Amino acid sequence: MKSKTDLKELGEFGLIEHLAQNIQLSHKETITGIGDDAAVIDQNYDLVTLVSKDMLLEGIHFDLHYTPLKHLGYKAIAVNVSDIAAMFGTPKQVLIGLGVSNVFKVEDIEALYEGMKAACEDFNIDLIGGDTTSSKIGLVISITILGSARKEEVVYRKGASVNDIICVTGDLGGAYAGLQILEREKQVFLENPDMQPELEQYDYVVERLLRPKARIDLVHELKEIGLHPTSMIDISDGLASEIFHLCKAAGTGCAIFEDKIPIDSRTEQTLAELQLDPTMAALNGGEDYELLFTISQPDYEKIKNHPEISTIGYMSNSENGKKLVTRSGNIVDLKAQGWVHM
Amino acid sequence: MKSKTDLKELGEFGLIEHLAQNIQLSHKETITGIGDDAAVIDQNYDLVTLVSKDMLLEGIHFDLHYTPLKHLGYKAIAVNVSDIAAMFGTPKQVLIGLGVSNVFKVEDIEALYEGMKAACEDFNIDLIGGDTTSSKIGLVISITILGSARKEEVVYRKGASVNDIICVTGDLGGAYAGLQILEREKQVFLENPDMQPELEQYDYVVERLLRPKARIDLVHELKEIGLHPTSMIDISDGLASEIFHLCKAAGTGCAIFEDKIPIDSRTEQTLAELQLDPTMAALNGGEDYELLFTISQPDYEKIKNHPEISTIGYMSNSENGKKLVTRSGNIVDLKAQGWVHM
Repeated sequence: MKSKTDLKELGEFGLIEHLAQNIQLSHKETITGIGDDAAVIDQNYDLVTLVSKDMLLEGIHFDLHYTPLKHLGYKAIAVNVSDIAAMFGTPKQVLIGLGVSNVFKVEDIEALYEGMKAACEDFNIDLIGGDTTSSKIGLVISITILGSARKEEVVYRKGASVNDIICVTGDLGGAYAGLQILEREKQVFLENPDMQPELEQYDYVVERLLRPKARIDLVHELKEIGLHPTSMIDISDGLASEIFHLCKAAGTGCAIFEDKIPIDSRTEQTLAELQLDPTMAALNGGEDYELLFTISQPDYEKIKNHPEISTIGYMSNSENGKKLVTRSGNIVDLKAQGWVHM
Repeated sequence: MKSKTDLKELGEFGLIEHLAQNIQLSHKETITGIGDDAAVIDQNYDLVTLVSKDMLLEGIHFDLHYTPLKHLGYKAIAVNVSDIAAMFGTPKQVLIGLGVSNVFKVEDIEALYEGMKAACEDFNIDLIGGDTTSSKIGLVISITILGSARKEEVVYRKGASVNDIICVTGDLGGAYAGLQILEREKQVFLENPDMQPELEQYDYVVERLLRPKARIDLVHELKEIGLHPTSMIDISDGLASEIFHLCKAAGTGCAIFEDKIPIDSRTEQTLAELQLDPTMAALNGGEDYELLFTISQPDYEKIKNHPEISTIGYMSNSENGKKLVTRSGNIVDLKAQGWVHM
């Protein structure tokens, strides 16, 4: 095996230059990217700029024992794309901040960048800048994303009305199931380093964790069918926590039907094996990066047969509280424990 | 003394809400700030957006032994403002990413935010978002700044021509001198915790390190007198390293006159006490956050009597190399060691 390259062989500027080569810009608005004190973006006057940032810290958001760097790079971009999707916008540019210790070799950072570039290609984003610094404190990834939307097109967290229908894209709980599997395999490995993990049967849930989709595809679809959600958020901390955000912003309560929460059969199977409750995984598991949104009742016709959109409940008067209607028909208070990282 | 508040008493959302209260937005372009998946910025169609990010990591960029959190907050914003100044733009909005371990109390993060808000006020910037996360790996501060400029007004690193005059704002080497003093006092303190540091006589250099200015004031002044630099960069890594960037981008060489490099007498005095060479401190010390820029010769009249702008040399043909003309008249190669953090 070829030995890897020490970061200090390239130096800080050398590393940036090395990573920045072959970065193509594809948006006409991106006037300049990497290589100056700031990137320069031209604005079309009827658009607004959307901007968001998300930080991923080693030991909190990812565990390098079981997270391939390429996947980590991809995910770091995808979770930021998800924020732009949740505003009903189109992602355009990203800036990447990296803090790397000398445990990492040049090839490691290249792998990380490879994943980031793959995500930039998939989501059609220009990589326009950032900073790279040494770190004494583990790997730090900080992404800033810019997107755009027509001003009247932006969907905020606030905006839902009583009786609006609550929708969710894709399926939930998978990332949580994947995390449990990888944590279990990590323990097995730590106790017996010769054991090879057998993960094939868990491909679906592991991929849900390591390579989330970011549903910009569905944002485009909803725009095409002329559906404008009344409020929207992405599911990073678990369904319950995100519903709480929408209710709080709108000043409403809600009712969610347990049997309507979309959970993939492969997720259910894994959770059954782990003796974990699928509803709890969906409500509090987090990291699924699907979209949660509300629509007015007349719009129901537009999405009722969509294979990737589930209607799971409705917004209610705030005095009714936030309720979960269980499979057995009981009405219980919805609790938002949120996603406790690791 | 009142005991401080554990971060877990507020929780992640509580902390964000707590810190975000009383944040005022002052730019009409800032449609929404904190509280949604992304901030929304309206764009005037004849302006471009400038965007930059900078990360500050504990143990690399700052040492909490001698960096008050309020100053650290101020500096984190100021160094980003400096990047927008270096593009000849006006800073408008910032997003703040924080990774905090449970060593920190709510009051600590409040102090950090207080400094950030003070900087936002001084530089007239809207705080529009960010993320806060727990950290197992020390304090992480990640700032993204947005600014604007008329498209034809932006000054890039590239753009200088042979014979352009090289200018620098303020004075250099002070931040480096301040760092040496604080490092010395830290050692004294670690050996004898009862010793109280006597820093009054070092006020100037310590402030240069802990509370850099970011010369947006001079950007506005230069615009007022109708001076458009041909290239520009801010001095974060030391004068030599930044001159190398401008020469590389322009494809030129340069000649710098040692006796023209602006160094404050208080900086000289401190460096003399420490037996350090002032020219080396200015060339390689870094963290001064002054501006380095080039102007065409006819513009010299506009700035020749400006008390805060020094002309220190000129751009030359690249085959002449990058030279330092010493006080004694010798011509030596300019070396860019750059700023080695800590």
